[in-house]
Amino acid sequence: MKSPNILIVGTGAIGSFYGGSLARAGANVCTLVRSDYEYVKTNGISIKSVMGDFIFKPHEVVQKVEDYSKTPDYIIVSTKVLPDINIEKIIKPKVGKNTAIVLIQNGIDIEQPISEAFPQNEMISCLAFIGVSKIAPGQIYHQDHGRIVIGNYPKGKTKKVEILKELFNTSRIPCMVDENIITSRWKKLVWNAPFNPISVIGGNITTDIILKNTESLNFVIRIMKEVISLANAFGYPLSEDLIHQNISDTMSMAPYKPSMLLDFENKRPLEVEAILGNTVRLARKISFQVPNLEAIYAMLLLLDEGNRTYKRNST
Amino acid sequence: MKSPNILIVGTGAIGSFYGGSLARAGANVCTLVRSDYEYVKTNGISIKSVMGDFIFKPHEVVQKVEDYSKTPDYIIVSTKVLPDINIEKIIKPKVGKNTAIVLIQNGIDIEQPISEAFPQNEMISCLAFIGVSKIAPGQIYHQDHGRIVIGNYPKGKTKKVEILKELFNTSRIPCMVDENIITSRWKKLVWNAPFNPISVIGGNITTDIILKNTESLNFVIRIMKEVISLANAFGYPLSEDLIHQNISDTMSMAPYKPSMLLDFENKRPLEVEAILGNTVRLARKISFQVPNLEAIYAMLLLLDEGNRTYKRNST
Repeated sequence: MKSPNILIVGTGAIGSFYGGSLARAGANVCTLVRSDYEYVKTNGISIKSVMGDFIFKPHEVVQKVEDYSKTPDYIIVSTKVLPDINIEKIIKPKVGKNTAIVLIQNGIDIEQPISEAFPQNEMISCLAFIGVSKIAPGQIYHQDHGRIVIGNYPKGKTKKVEILKELFNTSRIPCMVDENIITSRWKKLVWNAPFNPISVIGGNITTDIILKNTESLNFVIRIMKEVISLANAFGYPLSEDLIHQNISDTMSMAPYKPSMLLDFENKRPLEVEAILGNTVRLARKISFQVPNLEAIYAMLLLLDEGNRTYKRNST
Repeated sequence: MKSPNILIVGTGAIGSFYGGSLARAGANVCTLVRSDYEYVKTNGISIKSVMGDFIFKPHEVVQKVEDYSKTPDYIIVSTKVLPDINIEKIIKPKVGKNTAIVLIQNGIDIEQPISEAFPQNEMISCLAFIGVSKIAPGQIYHQDHGRIVIGNYPKGKTKKVEILKELFNTSRIPCMVDENIITSRWKKLVWNAPFNPISVIGGNITTDIILKNTESLNFVIRIMKEVISLANAFGYPLSEDLIHQNISDTMSMAPYKPSMLLDFENKRPLEVEAILGNTVRLARKISFQVPNLEAIYAMLLLLDEGNRTYKRNST
């Protein structure tokens, strides 16, 4: 498989950047594009990057998955994780026997519904550590980092994981294989679960404000503790040292707006379910008490709801 | 004591309305007025009321407590409960041997610091169920209810409580004596602790929005449970029936903006400490876990802080 066929579903900032990188490394990349279809088909996607600018001309651009001419070796899903995006339904027409489904998305337990829909297919779960945003139709700005961690779901690594890693590395994207990718998702959640929601709930504030107030700092710590305990309850070993490490790392960072706050300010729907809803539902399933996570989940739902309603009203 | 001398500290909406009512019933009422001193001294306070409009002309109007010509039989404190208002210091010059200190204020455990500062004085704690607001200097609008519940702190009723009750009743203010006033404060907190904070934290929303979302409704119920359990732990008997009662009462009300939301929208400081801070500190004192109250306390502190900062920046 020298030039694998890759279909990108969700050609936003993440999908465009990693898709473009894989194409540069030699893969045949097709992008599913909705609103910017005409623009991207004609012009490709222009990527302004700290690693050097480039134009990503996909081998194919389709508006519907069915229109893709090939059966993909990989389908890379890089949409946001939102209740009204039904990934299983979108990708179904092109999931072949040997298609690996790759998720480059946020959240916890997001693989589960897709794995259930395609039990025979290989799944690869990824964590992207990157600062990238869409600035206009077909225009992506990659401003920071780019590291990606990949591994099979629920665990291990296959040949397809190795091939994907080689492609990323060829394109100078630091890629690490992690045979315990779920543990790493939980580990990322230790930061995400407190800081993303509190930046919104606390009144559109940056990380430094959250850390400066003793009560909210202690609240962050209590949430982190719950995430760690819950992960451990599910058999993913995380140490409480992560708390101190995450807090001190965040303290030494410049004041930072978590991505959820950026979404909120731009009236975009928040990944409430992927980050908090799935977490509290896992806890409820085993009757594990997570009152702090439950509290921010309930508050964030109200804020997300109001934010979307307001958007609807104002358009 | 046919015409008791009463000093009102905190001549806002509450102080003006109840002070004016006591004056009409025959008490000698002096008001401490800061910003509106000249206006009130000249014109008195105009009270537009559903019970009939009237002008309240205090017997004395002072800018400093020291300027009051008498030693009061009652000092009625009707300021907001805020960390930067030091009531003990303000009233000290006029607290005589026989002065009863009367609090018409929100919150829990608010009597404690004042009782500690004046251990020899009688204290009367009151709960006001009223809709009243200041619409301009010396202009008060009483739009709804007016009932007041009074009793000695920490419990019982004295002659002075009876006299106060008679004065209120003479002025057609429904007044009930409650010999277990602290229990009643906790009971009021069962509603206040969830609805006031969540109306702000959830994005400036009315009670109907809070109740419509299942997750936030359950969050409200969990907070109410905590308040009831904590009250019981301190020996104030409250039943869990209050939960259903409060929820169904609120559901049958018209969509309602809690007073904390009105304060927040008007960039006024919130009574975070009186309602939540004191509650969580009581819980911590006896190592009683109240994670839901802790969560809204931390979030509300951030929002109040941001709200005041913004006010400073914009003036």
